[in-house]
Amino acid sequence: MNIHIAPSKSTWSDIIKRPTRKSKDLHSIVSEVFEKVKAEGDQGLRYFTAQFDQVKINDLRVTDLEIKEAIENVNPQLKKAIQVAQENIKKFHQNQIFEERPVETMQGVNCWRKSTAIDKVGLYIPGGTAPLFSTVLMLGIPAKIAGCRDIVLVSPPNQEGKIHPAILYAAQLIGIEQIYKVGGIQAIAALTFGTESIPAVYKIFGPGNQFVTAAKERAILEGVAIDMPAGPSEVLVFADEFANPEFIAADLLSQAEHGIDSQSVLVSTSELIITKTKVEVEKQLALLPRKEIAAQSIANSIVIHIPTLSEAMDLINDYGPEHFIVMSKEEAEILARITNAGSVFIGDYTPESAGDYASGTNHTLPTNGFAKAYSGVSLDSFCKRITFQKITKEGLKLLGPSIEVMAENEKLDAHKNAVALRLKHTDANT
Amino acid sequence: MNIHIAPSKSTWSDIIKRPTRKSKDLHSIVSEVFEKVKAEGDQGLRYFTAQFDQVKINDLRVTDLEIKEAIENVNPQLKKAIQVAQENIKKFHQNQIFEERPVETMQGVNCWRKSTAIDKVGLYIPGGTAPLFSTVLMLGIPAKIAGCRDIVLVSPPNQEGKIHPAILYAAQLIGIEQIYKVGGIQAIAALTFGTESIPAVYKIFGPGNQFVTAAKERAILEGVAIDMPAGPSEVLVFADEFANPEFIAADLLSQAEHGIDSQSVLVSTSELIITKTKVEVEKQLALLPRKEIAAQSIANSIVIHIPTLSEAMDLINDYGPEHFIVMSKEEAEILARITNAGSVFIGDYTPESAGDYASGTNHTLPTNGFAKAYSGVSLDSFCKRITFQKITKEGLKLLGPSIEVMAENEKLDAHKNAVALRLKHTDANT
Repeated sequence: MNIHIAPSKSTWSDIIKRPTRKSKDLHSIVSEVFEKVKAEGDQGLRYFTAQFDQVKINDLRVTDLEIKEAIENVNPQLKKAIQVAQENIKKFHQNQIFEERPVETMQGVNCWRKSTAIDKVGLYIPGGTAPLFSTVLMLGIPAKIAGCRDIVLVSPPNQEGKIHPAILYAAQLIGIEQIYKVGGIQAIAALTFGTESIPAVYKIFGPGNQFVTAAKERAILEGVAIDMPAGPSEVLVFADEFANPEFIAADLLSQAEHGIDSQSVLVSTSELIITKTKVEVEKQLALLPRKEIAAQSIANSIVIHIPTLSEAMDLINDYGPEHFIVMSKEEAEILARITNAGSVFIGDYTPESAGDYASGTNHTLPTNGFAKAYSGVSLDSFCKRITFQKITKEGLKLLGPSIEVMAENEKLDAHKNAVALRLKHTDANT
Repeated sequence: MNIHIAPSKSTWSDIIKRPTRKSKDLHSIVSEVFEKVKAEGDQGLRYFTAQFDQVKINDLRVTDLEIKEAIENVNPQLKKAIQVAQENIKKFHQNQIFEERPVETMQGVNCWRKSTAIDKVGLYIPGGTAPLFSTVLMLGIPAKIAGCRDIVLVSPPNQEGKIHPAILYAAQLIGIEQIYKVGGIQAIAALTFGTESIPAVYKIFGPGNQFVTAAKERAILEGVAIDMPAGPSEVLVFADEFANPEFIAADLLSQAEHGIDSQSVLVSTSELIITKTKVEVEKQLALLPRKEIAAQSIANSIVIHIPTLSEAMDLINDYGPEHFIVMSKEEAEILARITNAGSVFIGDYTPESAGDYASGTNHTLPTNGFAKAYSGVSLDSFCKRITFQKITKEGLKLLGPSIEVMAENEKLDAHKNAVALRLKHTDANT
């Protein structure tokens, strides 16, 4: 842990600086995969799956039989937990259904917005050692509530050419039917261009390693939208002298176990709490099965003592954490002052894991300081809002002259004419 | 005009295909400018302004004196029109202020969202022959309502080293104070990295030519958000046999005058209306001051006769027009079926110019089919939404076991431990 006691404000930006992202260096491999998948379709996908995942796949689409087997292979306790999470995530995201009253900006000038689903969306679910079935819920549930017509799930196959049963269980539970065994850059290329098996989509969601991240950035240039740019996961805990060091340590470690590039930050107004947390981290770390990863990540963690709450909040908003955990008696003030964060966890009994899995909020959140400009995934991410307007004859009489003057001054005479013609017509008819 | 009568469905995608975007070809010039501005700051900006805009600029920031002069130089009639537009845009965007009730997803598990402004935003206003003061309103008004702290406006200087007075008038009217004389790729680079004069921002808004578009795509890779990807402006008019060909022609031409790459599309269930519109277009075109541009663009326009409304709506949703004008007796059905469009203009007295300038809706809209995945600019574009959660001791007892099971199955033991520790603590205390 890198401990900084009351550092001067001028050093903050260095202390909280994140490691540089390297997606630009991956251009050439991303280009190669994109070009080949665009040209060869499914054959290209099989080629790269053999090369990168070291497994031969014939049928890319997961069959009904495979799903049936998966359902049988997930233990009942996990099924029940997934169902609890499903219910909560559904409730929180259903509450986000868009409602807005129309506005009559001037007499006879009526304007409003309507939300419509994005027709075709792609969900990327990473494979690897830990099967992220929770991400299936976090992306699939809002996609279903939005009413997306085609929800295309892709996930890399394991060595047996299969997708983990918990991922398939979660997908069928929420009603996702199009599931394909393909991962990495080639999966993003498939969602971008479409292949014989896999439909092209309008927007791609989901976490992934640096290759997937670089591929999603390329997809943008091909005209496909993405959920948000990605970086390593991170947590910032703010603790005052009343906080429980045991809980702080547990939360820092749950971030640290994600990977050696995960960011754990502790900001505290109390030096004593920092000292006690350090002891607790060592104690808990020794007992973790994945302690090698967590130990490396915790070695890079940043601990900052800031004497006043007000300054601490400045630093936290400068950092813009993905997860922000608040363990303080000054809860109300902190909530009022936080402006840059992905998701905020308040009080002793609200661990980050709650939001990661089952409380109802989404776990797809802006990392890397992107919380300064991006929101996490929500129902909004699967919809777009169309504006509408209808102007009456009388409304155009009232508004028209202003439009004509502005159009004329922007040297757009046909714009002016579109109004003038209509006004002439109304005059002729009244 | 390219007229297609009842084309078979298999040919639609070719007929409505948009020209290819070329931003990828501009990589090397964008890189050169970005590197130099990053390294040299203001000096780099002056260098490229001399090279590309052929004008020498010493002080990049617009002074109070320049603003005062501009206010005097805008004629009162235009001032009044801008004020009318300002009021309507304000009303429509104020109605978008975020409200959402908290959700208790399970007993003791409270989740909610809060909207906060993006602290630092950059607004790009193109210069050139037509001064786009309307875009100052469309971007600046929602930025002010959102409460963005730093609103940084950039616009290229003209040959006298000045920004058009109407742009400066509109900016000061809505309270924008940081205005800089710089345009093109170098302006986007300045907003991305910051220079001695110009602050770096978190999100960049605004239209521009292909260089500005390519520069904004590069800004994304540097970690800066943008409003949306851009392409040439476009309109699609749907007209049935009751529509007025004079109005249709006027709306097609107001699109066409934007530039030779503008897209004008007419879809109609009536062949007679198509014939009459063609005559009207020629008549009105002859009278336009910018007829050279409009004539080239109108020559590339697409006119499609589709016999049934139902099929016409399929085609329109496939195209996803930026502006969609509805001149039909079947208004209600069309509004119910439209899913992909930026902004919809309904009825004989609602020309696109109304939304371009003054009715209240935003004119920064998704082009190039991006309406399938993106919304136009709104108050939401200047904010992000943070999720919050607070769980009681009892809430965690209820929810905790599900979290533990899921974490264990994703092989994230520290996540499980963060809950287990707290549950142990609650048991010890009860």
